[in-house]
Amino acid sequence: MPHYTAIVTLLAVLLHFLLATRVPVARAKFGVQLPATTGHPDFERVFRVHMNTLEWMPIFLPLLWLCAIYFNDGAAALLGLVWIGGRVLYFTGYSQAVEKRTPGFFIQAMACVLLLIGAIVGIVRNF
Amino acid sequence: MPHYTAIVTLLAVLLHFLLATRVPVARAKFGVQLPATTGHPDFERVFRVHMNTLEWMPIFLPLLWLCAIYFNDGAAALLGLVWIGGRVLYFTGYSQAVEKRTPGFFIQAMACVLLLIGAIVGIVRNF
Amino acid sequence: MPHYTAIVTLLAVLLHFLLATRVPVARAKFGVQLPATTGHPDFERVFRVHMNTLEWMPIFLPLLWLCAIYFNDGAAALLGLVWIGGRVLYFTGYSQAVEKRTPGFFIQAMACVLLLIGAIVGIVRNF
Repeated sequence: MPHYTAIVTLLAVLLHFLLATRVPVARAKFGVQLPATTGHPDFERVFRVHMNTLEWMPIFLPLLWLCAIYFNDGAAALLGLVWIGGRVLYFTGYSQAVEKRTPGFFIQAMACVLLLIGAIVGIVRNF
Repeated sequence: MPHYTAIVTLLAVLLHFLLATRVPVARAKFGVQLPATTGHPDFERVFRVHMNTLEWMPIFLPLLWLCAIYFNDGAAALLGLVWIGGRVLYFTGYSQAVEKRTPGFFIQAMACVLLLIGAIVGIVRNF
Repeated sequence: MPHYTAIVTLLAVLLHFLLATRVPVARAKFGVQLPATTGHPDFERVFRVHMNTLEWMPIFLPLLWLCAIYFNDGAAALLGLVWIGGRVLYFTGYSQAVEKRTPGFFIQAMACVLLLIGAIVGIVRNF
C-alpha cells in the first residue's frame, strides 16, 4: 500500500479545504454577499485561487496515484509535497496581485509534469 | 475489495449528476440563458449547490476511499451515506434560502471529518 | 493492474489540462482580463467547456475505475476513449455556438452511462 502517498493525499485535501474557507472570509472582508461570485477584485482573486486549485485536483490526484502505484510511493509523495508547496505560494501570491500568482503556479505545474513522467515510465515498465 | 464503498461511490456520483441536472431546469425556470451563470438569485443558489458539491467531491471521494482501504469498508460506506444525506438536505435547504443551507452543510462536513479521522487511524495502524 | 485504464486516465487528464489552456487563450483573444470570468460570449463558451469538463471529471473518473476494477480493464478503457472523443467534439462544437455542444455532450454522457452499467454489473457479480 502506498502509505506516503496516502498521507500526502490527506494533506492536499486539507489544503483544498483550507483554501475553500478563505472564500467566505474574503466575502465578509470585501462585502460580496452569497450567492454572488463577483463584485470586488480582491475577493475575486481569492475566489479564483480556490477555483483554480479545484480545477487542478482532478489533474493532480490521478497523476499522484498513478505515479505512486505504477512507479514509486516515496517519489510520488515527495512530488505531491512540492505540489502542495507550490499551491501555498500560489495562494499567498495571487491573494496580493494577479501577476504574483506565477511562481507558485509554475512549481505546482512542474510537480504535475514530473508525476506524469513517473506514471508513464511506471506504466510502460509494467506492461 | 471495498464493495460497500464502491456502491456508495456510485450513489454519490449519481447525486452529483442529479444536482447538475437541476441547473438547466433552474435556467429555464428563471430565464438565465447559457453561457451566463448569474442573473437571478433563485438560479444562482441552485447553481451554487451544484458548484459547492463539485468543490467537495475531491475532498469527499479521496477521504472515503482512504478510510475504506486503510480503515474499514463498512464504516466508510456508512459515513458516505451520511454525506449523501447531508448533501440532499443542503440542496433542498439552499434552493429555498441562503441561510437554510447550514444544517445539510454541517452534516456532510462532519461526515468528511469522521472519514478523515478513520483514514488517519487506518494509515497510522498500517505503518 | 488495469494498465489500459491507467493510460486512458492519463489521456483524460491531459485533455482536461489542454481545455484549461484554451481559457487564457480565449481571454487574450476576446479581451477578458483576470480574475473576471464573464464579459464576452465567445470567451464564456470556452470557459464553460472547461468548467463543464471539470464538473464531469468526478463523474467520469470514479465510473471509469469502478468499471475497470470490478468489470473489465479493456472495456473501461475503450469507453474512456469514447468519452474523450465526445469531450473533444463538445469542445469544438461549443466553441462555435451554444447549440453545437449537444452531439459531443450526448456521446460523453452515453459513455458514462455504459461505464456505470459496467460498474454495477461488476460489483453485483463480485458480491
